[in-house]
Amino acid sequence: MADYTPPFRDIAFTLDHVIPLDELTKLAAYEAIDRDSVFGVLEEFGRLMADVWAPTNAVGDHEGSRVEGDEVVTATGFKEAYQAYAEAGWGAVPFDEAYGGGGFPWIVGIVMQEMLNSANMALAMAPLLTQGAIDAILHHGSEEQKEKYLLKMVSAEWTGSMNLTEPDAGSDVGALRTKAVKQDDGTYRISGQKIFITFGEHSFTDNIVHLVLARTPDAPAGTKGISLFIVPKFLVNDDGSLGERNDVHIVSVEHKMGIKASPTCVLAYGDNSDGAIGYLIGEENAGMRYMFTMMNNARLGVGVEGLGLAERSYQHALGYAKERKQGYAPGAARGEKSFIVEHPDVRRMLLTMKAYTESMRLLAYKVAEQIDVARHGADEPTRTEAQEMVDLLIPLAKSFCTDLAETVTSTGIQIHGGMGFIEETGVAQYYRDTKITQIYEGTNGIQAMDLVGRKMPMRAGGVHQDQVDRMKATVAELSGAGEDLAVIHRELSAAIAALEDATGWLLSEGLADPVQALSAATPFQRLYATTVAGWLMAVQGLAAKRIIDAGGADADLAAVKLVTARFFAEHLLPQVHGLVAPVKAGKADLFALTADQL
Amino acid sequence: MADYTPPFRDIAFTLDHVIPLDELTKLAAYEAIDRDSVFGVLEEFGRLMADVWAPTNAVGDHEGSRVEGDEVVTATGFKEAYQAYAEAGWGAVPFDEAYGGGGFPWIVGIVMQEMLNSANMALAMAPLLTQGAIDAILHHGSEEQKEKYLLKMVSAEWTGSMNLTEPDAGSDVGALRTKAVKQDDGTYRISGQKIFITFGEHSFTDNIVHLVLARTPDAPAGTKGISLFIVPKFLVNDDGSLGERNDVHIVSVEHKMGIKASPTCVLAYGDNSDGAIGYLIGEENAGMRYMFTMMNNARLGVGVEGLGLAERSYQHALGYAKERKQGYAPGAARGEKSFIVEHPDVRRMLLTMKAYTESMRLLAYKVAEQIDVARHGADEPTRTEAQEMVDLLIPLAKSFCTDLAETVTSTGIQIHGGMGFIEETGVAQYYRDTKITQIYEGTNGIQAMDLVGRKMPMRAGGVHQDQVDRMKATVAELSGAGEDLAVIHRELSAAIAALEDATGWLLSEGLADPVQALSAATPFQRLYATTVAGWLMAVQGLAAKRIIDAGGADADLAAVKLVTARFFAEHLLPQVHGLVAPVKAGKADLFALTADQL
Repeated sequence: MADYTPPFRDIAFTLDHVIPLDELTKLAAYEAIDRDSVFGVLEEFGRLMADVWAPTNAVGDHEGSRVEGDEVVTATGFKEAYQAYAEAGWGAVPFDEAYGGGGFPWIVGIVMQEMLNSANMALAMAPLLTQGAIDAILHHGSEEQKEKYLLKMVSAEWTGSMNLTEPDAGSDVGALRTKAVKQDDGTYRISGQKIFITFGEHSFTDNIVHLVLARTPDAPAGTKGISLFIVPKFLVNDDGSLGERNDVHIVSVEHKMGIKASPTCVLAYGDNSDGAIGYLIGEENAGMRYMFTMMNNARLGVGVEGLGLAERSYQHALGYAKERKQGYAPGAARGEKSFIVEHPDVRRMLLTMKAYTESMRLLAYKVAEQIDVARHGADEPTRTEAQEMVDLLIPLAKSFCTDLAETVTSTGIQIHGGMGFIEETGVAQYYRDTKITQIYEGTNGIQAMDLVGRKMPMRAGGVHQDQVDRMKATVAELSGAGEDLAVIHRELSAAIAALEDATGWLLSEGLADPVQALSAATPFQRLYATTVAGWLMAVQGLAAKRIIDAGGADADLAAVKLVTARFFAEHLLPQVHGLVAPVKAGKADLFALTADQL
Repeated sequence: MADYTPPFRDIAFTLDHVIPLDELTKLAAYEAIDRDSVFGVLEEFGRLMADVWAPTNAVGDHEGSRVEGDEVVTATGFKEAYQAYAEAGWGAVPFDEAYGGGGFPWIVGIVMQEMLNSANMALAMAPLLTQGAIDAILHHGSEEQKEKYLLKMVSAEWTGSMNLTEPDAGSDVGALRTKAVKQDDGTYRISGQKIFITFGEHSFTDNIVHLVLARTPDAPAGTKGISLFIVPKFLVNDDGSLGERNDVHIVSVEHKMGIKASPTCVLAYGDNSDGAIGYLIGEENAGMRYMFTMMNNARLGVGVEGLGLAERSYQHALGYAKERKQGYAPGAARGEKSFIVEHPDVRRMLLTMKAYTESMRLLAYKVAEQIDVARHGADEPTRTEAQEMVDLLIPLAKSFCTDLAETVTSTGIQIHGGMGFIEETGVAQYYRDTKITQIYEGTNGIQAMDLVGRKMPMRAGGVHQDQVDRMKATVAELSGAGEDLAVIHRELSAAIAALEDATGWLLSEGLADPVQALSAATPFQRLYATTVAGWLMAVQGLAAKRIIDAGGADADLAAVKLVTARFFAEHLLPQVHGLVAPVKAGKADLFALTADQL
């Protein structure tokens, strides 16, 4: 019942027709890659996810993880599932061949991330946090550090962890107080405590490479005084063998509402010495800048967590709706109970789940495609435009995919009725797991601040305008494309008009007074993201129509994709019209009261 | 931190100025009641909730409940908290004096329900389910049954439970199979098994009065063949003393996502005999009709669960926002960290929680007021109009208060950031508890079917039109009521226009084809409910403006109430404009695909 089937047909339709993989594989950097090699990887990987990972998901939720002495005990089957992943070399797929990677496009890695998260989000966090650490060392580490740590992390022999948060330094990372004192030998002694360290301790691998943000004694205040260090659990000798145990130890793991199997650790550095041994990455006080390098990937990764949970929740709810009989649907034969999938409101819920999930996939894959183009596009202007698009879309993708994953997983419970509220059914877990995705890696409110404060002003609004122009080009394509697409044409046009209306206000009021922009940020972000999602679903609708008209091999599936595109346009996209007024309402009512009057 | 303070100022403002209690206490039935007696009750009751009940809430979530032998063990402090409630006679307050009640208006009972649910929703279910059972016996039981059971239930010496659901009979109650066989002595032997019986077993009281739906051997199929029985845990002798243990026993309790402390029981009848002894209420085969009698109260009660959770979640989040420092808000002194309540997006979240909670309170109290008028209004036309309004507003109140409670409690977590996801913080519980309220007592999808299928057609649309006229009268009052209310005037007018647009489609298309109406039901319900909530918030705004202009004692509070009314109009009410297109989309896309294509 709680089985997971990798949605290969949907993925293939997307990569074949909507966000064309063959445009990427034409690039010089991917000349060794073709459709067959990509789908070969995806299908084999999908089997591991379905057969080995997915069955551990509910077990992990039930057992959680716990501290025993200096170790963290994870749930039954987790270590084996991780090791099967590591031994097959799956972690390396989207990384540079120079460091042992498979050289595949990032979008392939994102498809794999979707499956990882559908199969077992809590366990997926071990490799995903490792990817963040890899990113940091790859871009900012020394050759020696790459040699010593990176190869083993790309191969998944070791995991990485990200150590940022402290009790008084969450969203405000600049407030952190962990100390780093330089020694004569060039190493540092790290002391302090960090919280919310995902897989900060476990026994999957022989070593863990902690990346730790800390502050040297004379560092400037705030984010400009933060440095980034490698603090390995075991020191690594020059021959690559493991040396002494470093003085970084588990204090406790949190008791959470979801992703219970992912150990969220409190780690202490230097409690038993003058400090854990740390190695500076790059230069002192540049740590925040280095963090920004990996931020886009990490935020996209969290959006993909939402996508993965939404997909699994949908599969689960659809399976139930097709086997549960209750009442009589319209048109049911007399005396014959109906499967609930035939009830109009259950249909509406299922299509809402399906259309949102598809739109999340399009948005996440689109960003991933542009990450690849930004890295390996044919020329500089192409790469620059792609990078700009990535920067603009990241807060939209992160917030949309995680906010709507809450809607989708909640609807998944609703379709199960009272059984959905019973934990053994398994669907409540997706809902509980989802909530954290709206919070970490920058809360969705912080995404909105990033959107209005950093992204909208890019190139004096030019980056935003390029996106609007892209969407309007699709509207032009839809115009006169036939009755099947008329609703999409109407609703996408109206949504873009709403976006432009809100943007006009934001750019005039928000430039004059940043508090106006910050007050409007969240409704503006949802308005923008919903419009972009609606645009991508329209692109899907156009592609589907072309295939149907041509009568190609995918015509049956295209007919389905056209319906979900239309459903999105009619049922979900119009929400934008409820968001213009909240944007324009600005700060007035928010600050009409003092805190004590609230 | 997780304290609960009964929101007396908000309650008093509502009952003094928005939904005036003094209109009710003028009625002959309430001549012994006045403002002082009502607030005397509420304040004393509120102390019990704050001091005794509220501290048990997190304990209950942690400990849950479990079966030991033939008994259910509830969480620490629960029995004592229930008994303190029972011994003070609080259960009796809103019931008829003829049966030992306090004779207070139902709206006073609803205010108490709000506090019960804020303090501890899981425990509140014991008295609330008892109220449902009281309703049934009061309206349909024999004098002997009232004498024997009702008095002890009104006094809360015994609890009641509702036994409806079976594994294959959930939303479709008519499918139930529990058997009832009549004996020569006029009693029945009940055999079968039921699930989802809230407080079906516990040790708070000496006896439990189960109301059980069952089917006699020759009963017609479906809902027309269901009878309602009293099945006491212990038989009651004619002198009122307890006799033999009846053959109704606990099988198990469910492991749930929320309200973990409320034992959700599987009960077996007659496993050790030829049946548990049951006493027919009223006539055979009339059970479903009797259930409908109590349905309005029960559904309003579930809406009030949403309100209670929203209020507590808001208090918790506000407390945190006022004591947690993080980052620099606009205008903060250099080097001085801000309380997060000063950040614009946190403000927006808090005002969203506050405005939604106030609107839920207005909606729930408005329905309760009309229940009182329907019972005790001065003349028949007044009573009829009130009953019609209750019938129309019940699905709106149930669905709106529970759907938006999900939004509010989710936002409460969001304001806490990562800490919100840690169970010890306590806010995740409200979110987990809330989800069931969208499901039981008729899922919100079933509420929507009730709205479009039964309520909109009442008096050929006349009941609906009366509601529209009431709202338009408020728009007329708002017109020219000053700049402070201009936004409310604009947005309420626009919302009513959207409602009329959608209603026009529904009444023409939905009359021609019920599948159209059923397909549009959920977005239509949300559109209608949001408009009604916006109307009540506008009424609050008008009242606040009058008080401010008059410079009365409540002027400070009125200034706050005006802001929340305006916030609702600008930020929340415009959502209706995203719901017209989904209504009008109708059935086409929902049934464009077969189940296998989904």
